[in-house]
Amino acid sequence: MKKIIINVMCLIAVATPALCQQNIFGGKQVVSPEINADGSVTFRYASREAKDVKIDGDMLPLTKVETPFGMMDGYKPTEMHCGNDGVWTFTSSKLNPDLYSYHFVVDGLSLPDPANICQMRDGNSFTNTFLVSGDSCSLGYLYSVNDVCHGTISKVWYDSPSLKMRRRMTVYTPAGYEGNTDRYPVLYLLHGAGGDEDSWTTLGRAAQILDNLIAQGKALPMIVVMPNGNAQDQAAADYVPSAAVHTIGGGGLEGGVEPFEKSFADIMTFIESHYRVKAGKQNTAIAGLSMGGGHAMGISLLYPDRFDYVGLFSPAIFLGGQRPEELTADNAVSKTSVVSKLKRQFANAPKLYFFAIGRSDFLYKADSNFRSILLNNNLHFQYLETEGGHTWRNWRHYLTVFLPQLFKH
Amino acid sequence: MKKIIINVMCLIAVATPALCQQNIFGGKQVVSPEINADGSVTFRYASREAKDVKIDGDMLPLTKVETPFGMMDGYKPTEMHCGNDGVWTFTSSKLNPDLYSYHFVVDGLSLPDPANICQMRDGNSFTNTFLVSGDSCSLGYLYSVNDVCHGTISKVWYDSPSLKMRRRMTVYTPAGYEGNTDRYPVLYLLHGAGGDEDSWTTLGRAAQILDNLIAQGKALPMIVVMPNGNAQDQAAADYVPSAAVHTIGGGGLEGGVEPFEKSFADIMTFIESHYRVKAGKQNTAIAGLSMGGGHAMGISLLYPDRFDYVGLFSPAIFLGGQRPEELTADNAVSKTSVVSKLKRQFANAPKLYFFAIGRSDFLYKADSNFRSILLNNNLHFQYLETEGGHTWRNWRHYLTVFLPQLFKH
Repeated sequence: MKKIIINVMCLIAVATPALCQQNIFGGKQVVSPEINADGSVTFRYASREAKDVKIDGDMLPLTKVETPFGMMDGYKPTEMHCGNDGVWTFTSSKLNPDLYSYHFVVDGLSLPDPANICQMRDGNSFTNTFLVSGDSCSLGYLYSVNDVCHGTISKVWYDSPSLKMRRRMTVYTPAGYEGNTDRYPVLYLLHGAGGDEDSWTTLGRAAQILDNLIAQGKALPMIVVMPNGNAQDQAAADYVPSAAVHTIGGGGLEGGVEPFEKSFADIMTFIESHYRVKAGKQNTAIAGLSMGGGHAMGISLLYPDRFDYVGLFSPAIFLGGQRPEELTADNAVSKTSVVSKLKRQFANAPKLYFFAIGRSDFLYKADSNFRSILLNNNLHFQYLETEGGHTWRNWRHYLTVFLPQLFKH
Repeated sequence: MKKIIINVMCLIAVATPALCQQNIFGGKQVVSPEINADGSVTFRYASREAKDVKIDGDMLPLTKVETPFGMMDGYKPTEMHCGNDGVWTFTSSKLNPDLYSYHFVVDGLSLPDPANICQMRDGNSFTNTFLVSGDSCSLGYLYSVNDVCHGTISKVWYDSPSLKMRRRMTVYTPAGYEGNTDRYPVLYLLHGAGGDEDSWTTLGRAAQILDNLIAQGKALPMIVVMPNGNAQDQAAADYVPSAAVHTIGGGGLEGGVEPFEKSFADIMTFIESHYRVKAGKQNTAIAGLSMGGGHAMGISLLYPDRFDYVGLFSPAIFLGGQRPEELTADNAVSKTSVVSKLKRQFANAPKLYFFAIGRSDFLYKADSNFRSILLNNNLHFQYLETEGGHTWRNWRHYLTVFLPQLFKH
């Protein structure tokens, strides 16, 4: 009897495609993507009308693509081939366990894969994703929802008196938090330009990485706070559309401390009064990617006695308003000032100052100059250099390397 | 100097459209949708290649569309018109304050509006949305993120021993919860077939409705628990793709209590041990839409002394495996059994048994028969009949009517 009812509902769904009705039955006509036994992945797009269908994504072979700065690592959209059944297909090479992003390009138009419900917002655009899992040591496993205890992801609003607005952030509390009275160390984890408070828990896979590393005993249970680093915004642009005016700016220190960095005390005050966090710099970490790496650098300088663990992932660093490579004799005072602040921070002997970047990152040169400042002043840091560029693939990876080192000294 | 850096990053973003890179600059070329001063809304789609562009959505005039069951309320995709600038436009009539859903149909292909970042997953598909706000009494205001104190939305995992899996749910805690030690009443709020634990906080606007009604003093602060009602699933299909096998089933009672309803004690046990909820039926409510309305009916029958407040929004009700209109002499025993259970439930004098449906809902006839059972047995309920059908527009509205009545007796 139930089966008949379902069929009736199906007919209605087909007959009245009103958007606000529940989508009881998806329109999936082909399986895409399909992970094959040999580790390759097949993508399918059903269309008899399309004349040209390409696929673009980071599961394609990395190649050199031309940019205004010369040849850089990138991906070239690749032709899909149409079968007699009207289904366009493309099969990748064998892929490593990882998270991948892609979309179709149909007659020149970028389209999501209509057969893949996994779609993530990345700033102002959307991308399809798929996961290739692997053994428990693989990155693909760490990015997957496995059968382990899961922490909670919360969207929380806090008051920011210094920015004069209520603001939204994401907070990860580890499995068990709501059912006990323990206190936990805290990591502040910051996104990049174009991102927001949602970024680290979508393409960043922060919650999955934390759940899995904690379950494996490789990372300690911790609270992770992921605020919105765009100082003019209350929240992600899709959550508060009218209020969303993106600011883009790297970490600043002199002659204009960035508003977000100045407002960071509001975030720490809120977290310390609303969550059971362990006090003290030995229990407090800060990390970020790109603009957020600049923020993490700048905030840890502003509060040199607050963070024993600092992570800079492909950081966008400004020194006195200039990037490291732009420092001249005229603004050496700024550099001098930054060095003195860095020395003050390192006099507190942070337990980990972690710096990671990809060899083809467009910030590589600038970040090398900043690393030189650290090296020349005997300021000890841990350095990880990888393949690839300014990508979520690298930032997820860096997080898996950073987390197991926290709060264990 | 910063401006130059930004331009540099822009060039790179254009040159290497790698999907996993941060989308620093969106591709917005036109403004769409644009809410005009006269209350109409203009939609724009830029394409010189397209031959035919239509718009489909629930801001179009409601009209009768043909279905296998005769003419029913629905929307007809409407032509957009192309200007000399290659921009296709459509302007709606003046719209009431509300949340609207739409998409484009470009040469027969359903497409999201590339200029609108507001996109929500509705089960297995995606839809663009926009809000028309209004004065503080309007529905559009209640659905908006206004400058009021906001509660927290959490994605929480619980163990379900009876379903033998870890499962994900959404929990709303009212503003202030994390910063105090108060106890709160609790509403269990259930989604429909095709939905999941995300539904009520996306198209359902539950968090905004709660924030605004609580801020206005119209609803009491409460905890709202939104589990996944598909008993075979751990979580929404986009969150745990491999585990997602949707079950579709209305509320069942006899000869097969639905697994979700049987497992509901797992949810209540978890919530009572992990959240500061007030005990007692006077502090406990349950409501749901469509399948979730059936669940709310069935669960409140299974636990006749647990809920003083029950809300059935367009409920899909099965009685002994049959829908109300399918009861015959042969299965009267089932009906008799349900009636005796309803009488037992109502003997506990629930403070509110709320029943709402739209006049053009395809469940109208079946639900009328269930209401007859209530009426014929002098089981008191509150009845709300509205225009429209089986739509989120109605379910959001019903929630705004239901919430202010809770926990005030």
